[in-house]
Amino acid sequence: MLIDQTSPKSFASDNHAGVHPDVLEAITHANHGDAPAYGGDDWTATFERHIEATFGPQANGFAVLNGAGANMVGLALTLGCYDAIICADSAHIATHEAGAAERLLGVKLMTAPTTNGKLTPTDITTRLGGLGNPHESQPTVVSVSQVTELGTCYTPEELSALATAAHDAGLLLHVDGARLANAAAHLHCDLRTITTDAGVDVFSFGGTKNGALAAEAVVVLNPALSTAVPFLRRQSLQLASKMRFIATQLSALLDNDLWRRNADHANKMAQRLAAGVADLPAITIQHPVESNAVFASLPHDAVRRLQERYTFHFWDEPSGVVRWMTAFDTTPDHVDEFLADIHKTLSE
Amino acid sequence: MLIDQTSPKSFASDNHAGVHPDVLEAITHANHGDAPAYGGDDWTATFERHIEATFGPQANGFAVLNGAGANMVGLALTLGCYDAIICADSAHIATHEAGAAERLLGVKLMTAPTTNGKLTPTDITTRLGGLGNPHESQPTVVSVSQVTELGTCYTPEELSALATAAHDAGLLLHVDGARLANAAAHLHCDLRTITTDAGVDVFSFGGTKNGALAAEAVVVLNPALSTAVPFLRRQSLQLASKMRFIATQLSALLDNDLWRRNADHANKMAQRLAAGVADLPAITIQHPVESNAVFASLPHDAVRRLQERYTFHFWDEPSGVVRWMTAFDTTPDHVDEFLADIHKTLSE
Amino acid sequence: MLIDQTSPKSFASDNHAGVHPDVLEAITHANHGDAPAYGGDDWTATFERHIEATFGPQANGFAVLNGAGANMVGLALTLGCYDAIICADSAHIATHEAGAAERLLGVKLMTAPTTNGKLTPTDITTRLGGLGNPHESQPTVVSVSQVTELGTCYTPEELSALATAAHDAGLLLHVDGARLANAAAHLHCDLRTITTDAGVDVFSFGGTKNGALAAEAVVVLNPALSTAVPFLRRQSLQLASKMRFIATQLSALLDNDLWRRNADHANKMAQRLAAGVADLPAITIQHPVESNAVFASLPHDAVRRLQERYTFHFWDEPSGVVRWMTAFDTTPDHVDEFLADIHKTLSE
Amino acid sequence: MLIDQTSPKSFASDNHAGVHPDVLEAITHANHGDAPAYGGDDWTATFERHIEATFGPQANGFAVLNGAGANMVGLALTLGCYDAIICADSAHIATHEAGAAERLLGVKLMTAPTTNGKLTPTDITTRLGGLGNPHESQPTVVSVSQVTELGTCYTPEELSALATAAHDAGLLLHVDGARLANAAAHLHCDLRTITTDAGVDVFSFGGTKNGALAAEAVVVLNPALSTAVPFLRRQSLQLASKMRFIATQLSALLDNDLWRRNADHANKMAQRLAAGVADLPAITIQHPVESNAVFASLPHDAVRRLQERYTFHFWDEPSGVVRWMTAFDTTPDHVDEFLADIHKTLSE
Repeated sequence: MLIDQTSPKSFASDNHAGVHPDVLEAITHANHGDAPAYGGDDWTATFERHIEATFGPQANGFAVLNGAGANMVGLALTLGCYDAIICADSAHIATHEAGAAERLLGVKLMTAPTTNGKLTPTDITTRLGGLGNPHESQPTVVSVSQVTELGTCYTPEELSALATAAHDAGLLLHVDGARLANAAAHLHCDLRTITTDAGVDVFSFGGTKNGALAAEAVVVLNPALSTAVPFLRRQSLQLASKMRFIATQLSALLDNDLWRRNADHANKMAQRLAAGVADLPAITIQHPVESNAVFASLPHDAVRRLQERYTFHFWDEPSGVVRWMTAFDTTPDHVDEFLADIHKTLSE
Repeated sequence: MLIDQTSPKSFASDNHAGVHPDVLEAITHANHGDAPAYGGDDWTATFERHIEATFGPQANGFAVLNGAGANMVGLALTLGCYDAIICADSAHIATHEAGAAERLLGVKLMTAPTTNGKLTPTDITTRLGGLGNPHESQPTVVSVSQVTELGTCYTPEELSALATAAHDAGLLLHVDGARLANAAAHLHCDLRTITTDAGVDVFSFGGTKNGALAAEAVVVLNPALSTAVPFLRRQSLQLASKMRFIATQLSALLDNDLWRRNADHANKMAQRLAAGVADLPAITIQHPVESNAVFASLPHDAVRRLQERYTFHFWDEPSGVVRWMTAFDTTPDHVDEFLADIHKTLSE
Repeated sequence: MLIDQTSPKSFASDNHAGVHPDVLEAITHANHGDAPAYGGDDWTATFERHIEATFGPQANGFAVLNGAGANMVGLALTLGCYDAIICADSAHIATHEAGAAERLLGVKLMTAPTTNGKLTPTDITTRLGGLGNPHESQPTVVSVSQVTELGTCYTPEELSALATAAHDAGLLLHVDGARLANAAAHLHCDLRTITTDAGVDVFSFGGTKNGALAAEAVVVLNPALSTAVPFLRRQSLQLASKMRFIATQLSALLDNDLWRRNADHANKMAQRLAAGVADLPAITIQHPVESNAVFASLPHDAVRRLQERYTFHFWDEPSGVVRWMTAFDTTPDHVDEFLADIHKTLSE
Repeated sequence: MLIDQTSPKSFASDNHAGVHPDVLEAITHANHGDAPAYGGDDWTATFERHIEATFGPQANGFAVLNGAGANMVGLALTLGCYDAIICADSAHIATHEAGAAERLLGVKLMTAPTTNGKLTPTDITTRLGGLGNPHESQPTVVSVSQVTELGTCYTPEELSALATAAHDAGLLLHVDGARLANAAAHLHCDLRTITTDAGVDVFSFGGTKNGALAAEAVVVLNPALSTAVPFLRRQSLQLASKMRFIATQLSALLDNDLWRRNADHANKMAQRLAAGVADLPAITIQHPVESNAVFASLPHDAVRRLQERYTFHFWDEPSGVVRWMTAFDTTPDHVDEFLADIHKTLSE
């Protein structure tokens, strides 16, 4: 299906947006002559310097092809074959990666129900009872998503508390940062504040939802974990041969804070959308709007009528909750047009 | 390392080449407005039509991110957990994919030594002795590479004989077609002749080495195998969210036979290179030059001196064998400059 | 630690009991001259006939070494690599097999909270929303434990309803029958009534907790699934070379209904124990006592004092719930002695 | 099939023999009252002391259920997911464990052709070329079988040389000791001489072929590796609940050198058999007879006629090689009767 370009902006996913022009220009610029394959090239070196500059000298960045790949490579560093991951029951690794964690890592996900998608230190400490018991999977890593799957953000203090709870028990802290940029934009902080400075051990930094074509990074802050990445990346089918074209996308986002401009704009569009429905009694916003997603409940027939013209999906169909997402290329006009139609539909 | 653009063309790998301008233009054209994620878009539909037009109506194409990914997804369709793959001991899946077959598929590779990298029907029939024995891995698929890792090509007749030997024993035939285009160009035949018409069940069609940025296809000719692909592709970390940009690369290659022009040119450059050293007694060509690779043995110190200026690698260092590769963007001047230096070096 | 034989009977586990004399005699009888290895012997043939006589002519029995092995081999028959198992969150496969399901099968466990450990048809139907969605693990089998981990039993009608719900959705039904004998004894029915006749596809039949040394059976009722067992059993490290000694243990239990006498006796001892504490206000029985387990809550300090003399464990320490188990060799005197001390301890 | 007890002794496998009377008596003695499950019992403690007394104070013994289980648990200690095992192409783990190494460990077997089944230090050093290359599986352990699958034994000096070659490259040394007892008997040395003293890191000690019912030990000499065993043993389906009955079998063999008497006797019977055919020109002994196996080639029709009366198998049918095995319960009369028939058959 082609989304009719005369039709309104998609509010279904930040994956429906295309590539930011600066990213495409970076790709075009990298297409000049030969370059060594598999990451031995200048563009990859530039990307690695960007990672160090952004996250600190101990940060090792490895470019991969998609978010699930970044999660699997990053988590593999922290896990043996009888280990377990503590995560929210809404975590992307638990719900939308087709069982890759169980299959590729062979580990158990110890999931916790949450409020607004956010794990707490207590969720960690109450899941350690089986440590040392050979009949039970052994948790060795805590994985949280920043932004969460419900569009909320951990504050730096919340992340630090999770890191402390994990480290105190001998566990590591992994962050699925598919929308890390949106979190930093929302929190008005540096990317380093919610990673390096918060005690994170390994995380992914998402490029694709932020305007890249297909590029994510695994960033390892715990130096003892870095050695294995090249082997795991290759074996996990996440090594690009013409790496320069992947690495340069991430560099384009990290250069001149393009990542922040893209994320901040997408976040503002979500705020505009949420604000525009705040006065509608038929609509309830489900979670704090802290990134580029708005979770709202509204009558099923209103959803159906709006979906005739707009692209967006139910998040939880039985309870009438939809997810509306904005992207770097969503304009105020896109939002206002959508809002006008929402108001009109609900008043009919 | 940046390969100095004032320095000569790399002869190390077709992965050192960049992206063909038509592919980059197709990517740019796809960057227009919104499109559904994960393959529900118009560009993916176009790619699927290209696959059907090229390989026949029973062919189902699925775009993935790299060659190892295409191999793992394709082979996973044919294998249960106690199964085995019969392949050449030089097969890419056996030597250069970091153990992904053993790890991700959990299967044994039953490798056969070969002449010039080509498996024979006898290699299949002599490896079936353990069928039905619960102590032994059960071969269920034969995997061959076309072009082989040694640069040679199976004729359509050879492939048909392998398909017959495999099918007669209840096994399937998989082709690693990372350089399928080069084989069809060498054999002066259609892509269909060496896949659909030869009795192949599932194969990969490589785009990256043929001028794409990062795009390969898994093509399933045996309809019973297709159902699992979407799940396996997702789980195997090979599903791109902004799929249009992957699919359109493959369409660009399949459109107007760009794939053939690129492959034919690269092959011709390899022939030119091989012909240019044929009269040098210090150099022995190791395998028939049937694609874009030349395997040659020459004195170690000559290799060292040439590597000061040119990028290429030992294939088998103890025996002095190097691999020289050409690409769609290798020019006759590139080859002639290299040949001049080879002659000069060997005469010193 | 040796449990002092002058000390009272263990109430911690039916695994603390030894081997029933008839089983040991069967082992001794099998130790006569040579026998083919890996199951080609007469004792294994006898065992296979017992399985057919017990569960019907379509039943194929395969002897294995322990219960987790029986579960993994049985479930492997029903699962591909991107599949999922629907089970209770208290299921043994989910809690006490060290992550073997995730590691060896590579699948996701879709767990459901339950009342008294029993899954319902609604637990199945509400977990099918992701069927066909390539981002989600695909449930293909429902696994229930009979007896459940909380000592309760499914009635034949409840099992049939689960089978119908599973089959209607295209899923199979697996039963972890580590204590299947106790369930049939409690329900006053044949083993066939709660397996073959209830629509079960594959199940394990536990011997060890019923008086064997180390012997369990995987029984496959769905003939299409049987072919893979010999390969999976071997690969899963569950094939005994001197198979006769494993098979004959199961035959000893199935012969002359020894399994029922052992299970019925153990169940009666649990009833005696539960009845003996029914009048104690400080003790609350947690679940219906339908097998050889009594789950009771009592004050922590009473537990500590009783544990000085008796062997049993907390099931849920924070809430003060202990599990008391009886076995084929628990006597009325054992129970009465324990009851006397419980009464005495609680009255102090 | 029942081997007719009036028919001659089986020469097919030491797995065709039953259980040594002392082992069965030990099992019977352990069947006394209660004992904690999963290894917390006195018999397991006795077994652990036997292992320390036999192999030195740093040796940690863990009882498991079969030889493939012992290999998989032992090797798992030494391997990460992108690693490889260097072993002989005749190794049991490579040929007769149904692909368990690839499936359960997810690793590549780097196999080497051998003379008489014995790996050499050069086989190790020539397989290290890919160390550090992320495209290739990384060898981390060398696995040899003592006795080898071809009935030969490594001398202590040969094992030390392998340990040195492995350790020098940062690899560990694992020994598949399914017939370790036969090797020590042949070499007239202690078990410690060919394990602890030779620099082995982890090995299995086989009980089943030496007269046990079903019992093997994983012995870990490298203390850093021991921690993981309880978890891996449970997850790998190798933990017996009524452990005392497994552990006591191994103790019975280790007590008073029963292992040596059993092995020495079986070895002598193989020597008697080999000596008895030495003068027959139609028979060629294939490998030095250094344990309880005789590999001999003889005419196919003689094999067929002998198999009408005796149980033994082809090892390599096309070349007419059979494997004859003796056991602890093979008598001189058994051998002499077989020899008489061999002579008679070949003179017809």
